[in-house]
Amino acid sequence: MKILIDAMGGDNAPGEIVAGAVFAKSELDCELVLIGDRSQIEAVAEERELSLEGIEIVHTESVITMEDSPLVIRERLDSSMGIGIEMLKRGEGDALVSAGNTGALHAGSTLFVRRIPGIQRSAIATILPLAKPTMLIDSGANATVTAEHLLQFGVMGSIYMNNIFGIESPEVGLLNIGTEDCKGTQLQQDANRLLKAAEGINFIGNIEGRDIPFGKCDVIVTDGFTGNIVLKLIEGCSSYMMKEIKGMFTKNPMTKLSAAMMSGQLGAFKRKFDSSEYGGAPFLGIAKPVIKAHGSSNAKAIKNAVRQAISYSETGIIAEIAEQVKTVK
Amino acid sequence: MKILIDAMGGDNAPGEIVAGAVFAKSELDCELVLIGDRSQIEAVAEERELSLEGIEIVHTESVITMEDSPLVIRERLDSSMGIGIEMLKRGEGDALVSAGNTGALHAGSTLFVRRIPGIQRSAIATILPLAKPTMLIDSGANATVTAEHLLQFGVMGSIYMNNIFGIESPEVGLLNIGTEDCKGTQLQQDANRLLKAAEGINFIGNIEGRDIPFGKCDVIVTDGFTGNIVLKLIEGCSSYMMKEIKGMFTKNPMTKLSAAMMSGQLGAFKRKFDSSEYGGAPFLGIAKPVIKAHGSSNAKAIKNAVRQAISYSETGIIAEIAEQVKTVK
Repeated sequence: MKILIDAMGGDNAPGEIVAGAVFAKSELDCELVLIGDRSQIEAVAEERELSLEGIEIVHTESVITMEDSPLVIRERLDSSMGIGIEMLKRGEGDALVSAGNTGALHAGSTLFVRRIPGIQRSAIATILPLAKPTMLIDSGANATVTAEHLLQFGVMGSIYMNNIFGIESPEVGLLNIGTEDCKGTQLQQDANRLLKAAEGINFIGNIEGRDIPFGKCDVIVTDGFTGNIVLKLIEGCSSYMMKEIKGMFTKNPMTKLSAAMMSGQLGAFKRKFDSSEYGGAPFLGIAKPVIKAHGSSNAKAIKNAVRQAISYSETGIIAEIAEQVKTVK
Repeated sequence: MKILIDAMGGDNAPGEIVAGAVFAKSELDCELVLIGDRSQIEAVAEERELSLEGIEIVHTESVITMEDSPLVIRERLDSSMGIGIEMLKRGEGDALVSAGNTGALHAGSTLFVRRIPGIQRSAIATILPLAKPTMLIDSGANATVTAEHLLQFGVMGSIYMNNIFGIESPEVGLLNIGTEDCKGTQLQQDANRLLKAAEGINFIGNIEGRDIPFGKCDVIVTDGFTGNIVLKLIEGCSSYMMKEIKGMFTKNPMTKLSAAMMSGQLGAFKRKFDSSEYGGAPFLGIAKPVIKAHGSSNAKAIKNAVRQAISYSETGIIAEIAEQVKTVK
C-alpha cells in the first residue's frame, strides 16, 4: 500500500504535513511518498527533529496555492498536487492525500483520474463530527445537481459509511425544508422519489437543518451549494461558541477558577467539534481514492487522513460503487 | 394603534399567548385584540390570575393547527388566524401577530392582505441572534426565487433594519459558497450583479456560511430553501451545544460546583442564542404588518412581538419599501 501526500498543500504546509507523514509512517503499515520541495521538506524535518527514513520524496518546486482558480491544475501538472494526481492516475500510488486547494484537487481528480464508470458526478463527502460521525455529501463540488446525482450520492455515501465506519445498512436522509415527501423544490421531490424506490439504500426520508447536529442519520444527501453552506455554518457556529465559552470562563477570577476545575471536561467538549479525528473528505465517485484533508490540518489530521486513505483503498469501496451503480439507475 | 393577536397559534397557545398579551397591555401603549376561543382565553387568564381588562376578545372556535397544509387558510377564514388576516385586511387592526402555522400565515397574508405593489415575492425575515441581530431573508417562504426577488429582499431587509434597529446604511450580504463575485450558481451570480448595481443598498458582496454567526453583515439575502436550512441548523447547533454544555457541567460534584460559580455567566451565554429577545419574523413585502412569532414562543416572546408590531406600523417601513422598489427595478 503506497500513499501519495501533497506536502505543499494547506495552511500549515509543509511543516504539519511532513510531521503528519512521519507520524503515519511510525504508526501505520504503508509506504509513503511526500511530493514537494525537497529542501523545504528536509529543512522542516531537521527543525522538528523528525526522521524521514523510509519516506520517499518526489521533488518539485511548483505549487498550487489556496487562492488559485481550480482549473489552474490543467496547466500546472508539475505542481505537488498535479504530480500527485498524475502518479495516482498512472498507478504509482494507491491513494492521494492533499490539504491544498479543494477546487483544484477536485477538478484535477475528475479530469485526470476520472470518474467511476456510471457515476455522473463525483462529490466531496465530508464527515461531520458532533453527535456521531455523519457524512455530508455533496459538501461543495457540484453547485447544481439533478435528482439522479443525488441518488448516486446516497448510494456512494452508504457504501462508504458501511465500509469505513462499519455501519450496517447506513441511514440515508435527504436534506430538505420539511419532513413530508412533498416538501422542497422539484429537485428534492424527485430525489425523494428516486431514493425511496432505490434498492440497497436505507432511505429514512427528508431531514431538516435542526436534525443535522444530532446525528439523525449516517448520510446526509444534498446539493453542493446547500452542503457547502451547511459545512461552513457548522464550522462558524462551533468557532463562535468556542469563542463565547472562552469569554465566559475568562470573565473574572471566579470563572477562571471554575475553568480550571472543568479543564478535563472542556477538552472533551472541544473534541466533539473537531472533525480532524475522522481524517479528511473522500472525493466519492473518482475512480481512485483521493482524500481532501482540511486546509487547516495539523499533523494529527494528516496522519488520520493517511489512515483513512489506507482503509479506503483496502476495503474495495470503489469496486462496490461501480457494481451497485449499475443496478440503481 | 391596534394589534391583532392570534390567541390559538403556537405550541404554547393559548396560555403563553394570553399571558404575553396581558404583559404587552401593561407595558406598551396600544389596543389589543385576542382572537380565539373566549372560554379558553378566559379560563387561562383566571388560572394565571391575569386581568384581561382593556383587551378585546374576538371569539372563534375554529383553529388552524401546526400540522395543517398552508392552503387550508383559504377554507378556514373563520379560524383565529383567518379572522386576524381578514381584520387586518379590512383595517380593523394595524398589525397581526401569530405564533401559529408559518405556511398558512404566509399564504393567507399573500392571498388576502396582498403584497406591496411592485414587490414580486414576500419573504419571511427572521432576526438571528448570536454576535448581533442579523436578518436572514428569505428564511423559508420561497423555495425557488429569481435574482430580482433576491434584490428586492435586500432592499426590504435594508429598510427594516434601518427603521427597527436604527442601523445607518445596513450592510447587505449575499449568502454564497465563496466570496468572489463569480461564485455560486447562475442565480447567485446574477443576484450579485443586481445587488452591486442597485442604488440605496450597502451591498458588501458575498458572505459564506461561516460568517453568519459572527454578524458579518446586517442583512443576509438568500433563497427560502437555503434560508430555511440555515435557520433550522442554527437552532439545531444551539440546542445541541446547550445540551452538551449542560452535560459537561453535571458530570460530577466538581463540575456541578463549577456550574454554581458560573451561573450568572451561563445565563448571559444562553441569552446570546435566544431569538425571542427580538420578537418575531416580519413578512416583508406584505402590504400590512404581519409578524410571525416563533412556534415555541413564551409570554415574553409574544410581548416582544407586539412591541415589534407597533414599531413596524409606526415607522412607515411599508411606504418606504413601496417607494424604493420603484427605483431599483
